[in-house]
Amino acid sequence: MTTDAHRRGRRRPEGGAGSGATEKMVYFFGADRTEGTGAMRDLLGGKGAGLAEMTLAGIPVPPGFTVTTRVCNSFYALGGKLPEEYARQQQEVLRRLEEVQGKRLGDARDPLLVSVRSGAKFSMPGMMDTILNLGLNDESVKGLAERTGNARFTYDSYRRFLQMFGGVVLGISKNVFEQKMSEMKRDRRAGNDLDLSAEDLKQLVTEFLDLIEQRTGKPFPQDPHRQLDMARDAVFRSWFRDRAVFYRRQHGIPDDLGTAVNVQAMVYGNMGPDCATGVGFTRNPATGENEFYGEYLRNAQGEDVVAGIRTPRPILELGTEMPEVYRELREIALRLERHYRDVQDFEFTVQEGRLFMLQTRTGKRTAQAAVKIAVDLVSEGLITKDEALLRVDPTSLDQLLHPRIDPEAPCEVLARGLAASPGAAVGKVVFDPDEAVAMAQESDERGKPTRVLLVRSETSPDDIHGMAVAAGILTATGGMTSHAAVVARGMGKCCVAGCSAAEVHEEEGFLKIGEQTIKRGEYLSLNGSTGEVLAGEVPTIEPEVANEFRDFIQWADQRRRLGVRANADTPEAARIARRFGAEGIGLCRTEHMFFAEERLPHVQAVIMHAPRVKDLETRIERKRQDLENASEDQREAIEQQIAAFEAELAEPRRRYTEALDHILPFQRDDFYAIFKEMHDLPVTVRTLDPPLHEFLPRREDLRVEVALLKERKRPASEIEEREVLLERAEALSEVNPMLGHRGCRLGIAYPEITEMQVRAIFEAAARLAKEGVKVLPEIMIPLVGTVRELDHQRRIVDCIARDVAEREGIELAYLVGTMIEVPRAALTAGEIATRAEFFSFGTNDLTQMTFGFSRDDAGKFLPLYVESGILEHDPFVSLDETGVGQLVEMAVARGRSVNPELKTGICGEHGGDPRSIGFCHGVGLEYVSCSPFRVPIARLAAAQAAIRGERPTDADDHRGQI
Amino acid sequence: MTTDAHRRGRRRPEGGAGSGATEKMVYFFGADRTEGTGAMRDLLGGKGAGLAEMTLAGIPVPPGFTVTTRVCNSFYALGGKLPEEYARQQQEVLRRLEEVQGKRLGDARDPLLVSVRSGAKFSMPGMMDTILNLGLNDESVKGLAERTGNARFTYDSYRRFLQMFGGVVLGISKNVFEQKMSEMKRDRRAGNDLDLSAEDLKQLVTEFLDLIEQRTGKPFPQDPHRQLDMARDAVFRSWFRDRAVFYRRQHGIPDDLGTAVNVQAMVYGNMGPDCATGVGFTRNPATGENEFYGEYLRNAQGEDVVAGIRTPRPILELGTEMPEVYRELREIALRLERHYRDVQDFEFTVQEGRLFMLQTRTGKRTAQAAVKIAVDLVSEGLITKDEALLRVDPTSLDQLLHPRIDPEAPCEVLARGLAASPGAAVGKVVFDPDEAVAMAQESDERGKPTRVLLVRSETSPDDIHGMAVAAGILTATGGMTSHAAVVARGMGKCCVAGCSAAEVHEEEGFLKIGEQTIKRGEYLSLNGSTGEVLAGEVPTIEPEVANEFRDFIQWADQRRRLGVRANADTPEAARIARRFGAEGIGLCRTEHMFFAEERLPHVQAVIMHAPRVKDLETRIERKRQDLENASEDQREAIEQQIAAFEAELAEPRRRYTEALDHILPFQRDDFYAIFKEMHDLPVTVRTLDPPLHEFLPRREDLRVEVALLKERKRPASEIEEREVLLERAEALSEVNPMLGHRGCRLGIAYPEITEMQVRAIFEAAARLAKEGVKVLPEIMIPLVGTVRELDHQRRIVDCIARDVAEREGIELAYLVGTMIEVPRAALTAGEIATRAEFFSFGTNDLTQMTFGFSRDDAGKFLPLYVESGILEHDPFVSLDETGVGQLVEMAVARGRSVNPELKTGICGEHGGDPRSIGFCHGVGLEYVSCSPFRVPIARLAAAQAAIRGERPTDADDHRGQI
Repeated sequence: MTTDAHRRGRRRPEGGAGSGATEKMVYFFGADRTEGTGAMRDLLGGKGAGLAEMTLAGIPVPPGFTVTTRVCNSFYALGGKLPEEYARQQQEVLRRLEEVQGKRLGDARDPLLVSVRSGAKFSMPGMMDTILNLGLNDESVKGLAERTGNARFTYDSYRRFLQMFGGVVLGISKNVFEQKMSEMKRDRRAGNDLDLSAEDLKQLVTEFLDLIEQRTGKPFPQDPHRQLDMARDAVFRSWFRDRAVFYRRQHGIPDDLGTAVNVQAMVYGNMGPDCATGVGFTRNPATGENEFYGEYLRNAQGEDVVAGIRTPRPILELGTEMPEVYRELREIALRLERHYRDVQDFEFTVQEGRLFMLQTRTGKRTAQAAVKIAVDLVSEGLITKDEALLRVDPTSLDQLLHPRIDPEAPCEVLARGLAASPGAAVGKVVFDPDEAVAMAQESDERGKPTRVLLVRSETSPDDIHGMAVAAGILTATGGMTSHAAVVARGMGKCCVAGCSAAEVHEEEGFLKIGEQTIKRGEYLSLNGSTGEVLAGEVPTIEPEVANEFRDFIQWADQRRRLGVRANADTPEAARIARRFGAEGIGLCRTEHMFFAEERLPHVQAVIMHAPRVKDLETRIERKRQDLENASEDQREAIEQQIAAFEAELAEPRRRYTEALDHILPFQRDDFYAIFKEMHDLPVTVRTLDPPLHEFLPRREDLRVEVALLKERKRPASEIEEREVLLERAEALSEVNPMLGHRGCRLGIAYPEITEMQVRAIFEAAARLAKEGVKVLPEIMIPLVGTVRELDHQRRIVDCIARDVAEREGIELAYLVGTMIEVPRAALTAGEIATRAEFFSFGTNDLTQMTFGFSRDDAGKFLPLYVESGILEHDPFVSLDETGVGQLVEMAVARGRSVNPELKTGICGEHGGDPRSIGFCHGVGLEYVSCSPFRVPIARLAAAQAAIRGERPTDADDHRGQI
Repeated sequence: MTTDAHRRGRRRPEGGAGSGATEKMVYFFGADRTEGTGAMRDLLGGKGAGLAEMTLAGIPVPPGFTVTTRVCNSFYALGGKLPEEYARQQQEVLRRLEEVQGKRLGDARDPLLVSVRSGAKFSMPGMMDTILNLGLNDESVKGLAERTGNARFTYDSYRRFLQMFGGVVLGISKNVFEQKMSEMKRDRRAGNDLDLSAEDLKQLVTEFLDLIEQRTGKPFPQDPHRQLDMARDAVFRSWFRDRAVFYRRQHGIPDDLGTAVNVQAMVYGNMGPDCATGVGFTRNPATGENEFYGEYLRNAQGEDVVAGIRTPRPILELGTEMPEVYRELREIALRLERHYRDVQDFEFTVQEGRLFMLQTRTGKRTAQAAVKIAVDLVSEGLITKDEALLRVDPTSLDQLLHPRIDPEAPCEVLARGLAASPGAAVGKVVFDPDEAVAMAQESDERGKPTRVLLVRSETSPDDIHGMAVAAGILTATGGMTSHAAVVARGMGKCCVAGCSAAEVHEEEGFLKIGEQTIKRGEYLSLNGSTGEVLAGEVPTIEPEVANEFRDFIQWADQRRRLGVRANADTPEAARIARRFGAEGIGLCRTEHMFFAEERLPHVQAVIMHAPRVKDLETRIERKRQDLENASEDQREAIEQQIAAFEAELAEPRRRYTEALDHILPFQRDDFYAIFKEMHDLPVTVRTLDPPLHEFLPRREDLRVEVALLKERKRPASEIEEREVLLERAEALSEVNPMLGHRGCRLGIAYPEITEMQVRAIFEAAARLAKEGVKVLPEIMIPLVGTVRELDHQRRIVDCIARDVAEREGIELAYLVGTMIEVPRAALTAGEIATRAEFFSFGTNDLTQMTFGFSRDDAGKFLPLYVESGILEHDPFVSLDETGVGQLVEMAVARGRSVNPELKTGICGEHGGDPRSIGFCHGVGLEYVSCSPFRVPIARLAAAQAAIRGERPTDADDHRGQI
């Protein structure tokens, strides 16, 4: 039999998968008999399944039928035709619909009118829109006008039908119809559609019919059965429209899912005073308050409610105007909320006193409302805490923690950049960090400290002081992980990055966006949550945290397995992190500490002298080896050379050592303050990471400067001073600094720097230990690619730790670990873990190297890659599980196999991205670390990952639009 | 019993591994009874095993004994003492030695004298040197003088002994002794050592004895047994000397191997006229000719032969002077060659008419000799072809293919850089590529074309024309895979790169190395095989290929499984490659073709206009989408905007298209010539790879230029012309170009460029097809990281192929594949292989990204990493099997699992490195591709890999120094 079936299947592929003689292709829903269920989303699409489910629940829904997604597949398999059997089935359900409604399609006096809509398993842009009022023709329109006694309504319905059918089914541009309509209004001096009379509309119908014939070369199809077939096929065709295909490619939705077609009897809220139409929410979607919420219009059609021509009335008034309908509506709304166990956003129509529900779906809500509703639904016993936790989008919590643009305030969007760091910022623009500092100290018009926005083509570490005083940052270039974006997120400061429409003229002190010019000192507003750049001074709303939020986030903490730490480089950031619930610092970068005004000269002194010291030390060492094997005649010469080198070495060595000695107490104080803030919690300190040239002025700037000094014939001493700096900058310059002399490669070339940093850490820890404060330092060696690098640096750490412990006479507890951020580190994690107590995945760099994408440069092609679907998402925002994720998994597995005690975490930007957090939970990391303001997001996302990890399918799967 | 033994082992660790009551710690070798064998290298060290083997073979070797490596381990385990049992064993063998020699150690009249030498399993620098004449003291020196009647010889022997013992055992600087000796010579007006009399030497002995007492606070040990014990312990201690430890770390030799100690009876070639000493080779090590080869001196010590004081005589003369000894020596030498089945380099001494062999080892030879000897040994039936193939170091073949510095010529090494591209080059230095071209067209002093050396801080693609005419290239920065190195190897041109001692003053036109200044036009010589920079004009030798080489390389071809292709970008390179035996082109870069003078302007036109075109196209596309959804009021404005954009687009689009149209015929001609050269063989063409800014002048140069033009108040038009270029250069500039907008990312952003290139390829192929030439183009898409990138570019290739095939009315056979050079490509190879017909591993970039090392910048730390043992070798020279190799293996396995037909090869620099070729063979690649001049090296290395792959152990393992 199997063979037979198989053979039959082969002979008749038109039936689609699993087709047979008895395949059911059309499912009826309506009073008495509903053939589908809410679970049949694959077959009936989301909308079809929803209609079946509502009908089964006894909710008054206009009856109709759904053509299955398999028919859509057959349509393509048969080259635009339908299976023979299909026509019979459609005829049968249509007959039943006619029976239930007591009207016939095409009846000249009392016609059945229907709507036709697409409905795939997932809602998808690019699919065919709704066609309403199908069934009208030149004959039935008269009958209907007579029957309803409302010619204006009837001809308006026909007009709308022709317009939709012409546009969607016949492919005539919508604009052509709208133009006719506009002409008519101009002609009649009608302000809006309602000012047109029945006669006007009747004439418009004639014009539309002519237009259709003219454009298509054929008269408009008067046969309603043909109309229905054509509309149905148009839905099928829209499945392979460019936009729909593109959307599926991007979202990985297979082409062979197909779309269903829903045909439903029309109901009208505009047939007279006993008619109405409206929309509502079961709870307030802005605040989350448990109150019936909505608006309606009597004697109107759905689109009139939102069109803004007539002012809709609050739904409570329906209680006075149509008490019975109102009571039924409330009761149904509550039933829907119970049924779907979430706030519903519904549409209804009252036709001749009878209530119909047209649509219900999960209601969109603000973050504040989402939390309150989730917490309330738990106390009402409708959902579990786990479900509540899954109901809130973690990233939306940002809204609760940052000031935001007042959504009610009018505003003009000048341009859109990347939403690099959330919140809102309003201030006067400046183009220079020094100026930002100066202006921020002045008073503004209101006598308050001036709020400034720092606007730069791109920021560099030199700009930190300016960023620190700015209310927000705007850059023209750079991506989500550019310097500006990373630092701003670290500071919890609003930032819009990579706004390519902004031409920044830093020298001249103005900014051009399109035609607009914003000069130094003029106001501008930024929405870091959306990436919008807004004109002038837009009002903002300060955040406030409600009690529900406290409960909610505590549930998340109880549920999650992942620890949540913060990336913080300053005591201030550490304090914020702790306030937001961070359980430690996962990444404390030490280099940002080097840029402070009083330190930079010493750091630069290190850079100026260290390479010379190392060079001379190497030469001396080589000469000493020569000496061992030298003949007597050669000895003297070699010894003289050594003495000369030693003499030459004295001065740079003194200055190198002095400079390090100067920096040590600063670093010690830094660590002291951070450790104190984070008492009893672990703090992961990363040793120096960036290439040294980052601490010098830019080479290209120095080149121009020196060339100009020479051209201007400045004194030799002045030129020389800059030339020495330029020489150093040239010597340190790198073609690809990202892959250059940085990370532990610095600590290996200049072990004295590692020693100084580690000594500062341990001396700070010792001081606090004596004050009775518990400190848990974890020293992290960056950019390790082979175990020997880690071993080299670890020896220094252990040696200094012993030394400090002995001197101070105390015990020092600490861990030593490494960033896993170079692909080779992941590949050789089994070796590296023998010398590491923890791995922290630096997924920013790991992503850069695994893809070969420089995050500073990828802005040139990454948007194109995401837009055209070559990449599903920006891998610097959400971790690339397919590629980079493999390396993370590999490293965890190999690392643990040799060192079961190994602690693992992530400290890249991905540590604050919910999708990536899900991945981290999945591969079994111990913690994620993110910027302080993302800590609550991470706490929730970690809880969701834990909940989802325990359930085979997503609990939300059956929700969505009906 | 096992338990017992285990327990005993624990209680008495001093015995070393596997020790027991009966452990044998000293092995005798000599007449009658030899206790060791040649196979006992672990226990007796290389030298000890060799002595045993020679003795067993009946070769006259001075007898002696070997203290095992286990004793060395015990020495450390016991803190500098020996196992109790040891003394008895030493005493026993010493007694036997005394018996065999008929002399006693310490005998006042006729003392036994011995040498003491270290001897680990592997020979190792830093280990203790030889001590000769041990056994002499104030008494026995007199007896010996009497017995030999040669006081001068005897006191000289004592003097040498004191000097060696004082230096090596007692740790007194050698120089102190040499100083005394010099004083004596000055005093006696002695020109050399031989001019000192017996009395002089006697006095020197007294001075040396005083010196030792003075320095050590103790008199020199007169007891020969104590001398022996002290010398033995000094050997053991040298095992943990810094240099030895360092060497072991670097070579992965475990510390617990230990060293053996060899004690051997002294023999003397300087006891009278019936004595002699000499060195010899069984065949000529320079030419490989099968002729007995060597030198000797009568009445002399070994070191006199090499010291150059007396002129040694050709060994043939020994046949007249000592016919019997000569016959025996020849016979032994032949026996040794047969025994070891390779050319031997031996030392001998004749004492009182009796021949002793002191040492034999595999003879070092030139590449030419190595090939000849290997081929001859096969015809003589001594070794198999496989063994012959294993006998020649593949890299040495370079010597046969490039001109080289005459090894006989005197020369002064000014500095050492990286041996970036082999061969020798002599010429006049120039610092500018244009000048190189100009000077190369002039005649030199001899009326021949001037040979020039191009000297640059670093080269860039702008320098290509200068590199092409230069005899050699010298750069101050950049590593083995810097631009200069890669291009030079491609051109088969000598190059020394990264010579950091060279200060290049390009503007001023001179070069400083240490104190030396070489000005423009002065001669300099380069040895690209060693990295040496030589003063002035050094003579060179042109290569010649012998018949033996042809046979030899044919055997290699028969044996290897790997295919060998070449990386070649020009018809000339392709011709060379084919001549050297390349079986195709594995990498033909298309970008080098863009730099020719007549093309660059068009390439720059593409760069100036393409981004504007893409920008406007995107804007128009967006506006068109807006139009679809726009209301009638908005339509007009949008349509106007579109029209404005279209108008703006016309000019740049015209110029973009025109520029591409200009380049197309050039590219077509390039491919035509290369394909023709490589008829019947595959040619892999890589589409455009480097970032576009490489084709523009450097941004920083333009900045200075513009600043100066402004400062000089030049006409606005002149400034503007450069400013436009600067603007483009700024817009294209990248922080990390290596990870920027390059490779297929360009082809995706500018599909027209890919189209142009692919069209040029197929049109060239079509033209050749019509001429009856078979062409096998393989189109390779660079820098793919996800299958969708490959898919995007592949669609273009397939589409253009169809188009050309239709127009030309022929069939085009071609493959499409990708470089695997981004770690993510290796990780997702299973997906990528679904769209690829071949993978070519671009291990240069793969190494860069896997390590996070920029090859342009790693010069700052890579030498330190290799010197200090953090890396075992430069991963850009030999493939890093542990890290990068994992990715290669993974990609091959995953790629083949979905596409069993997948072709795999390597086209990175590693394709010409023998060690890496072994790896490629091991993971089962189909071919390697390297620069044309390395093709013979690759052919041999591939054969060796195939041979080694079939044998469990290396056939050469038992060879080495005895």
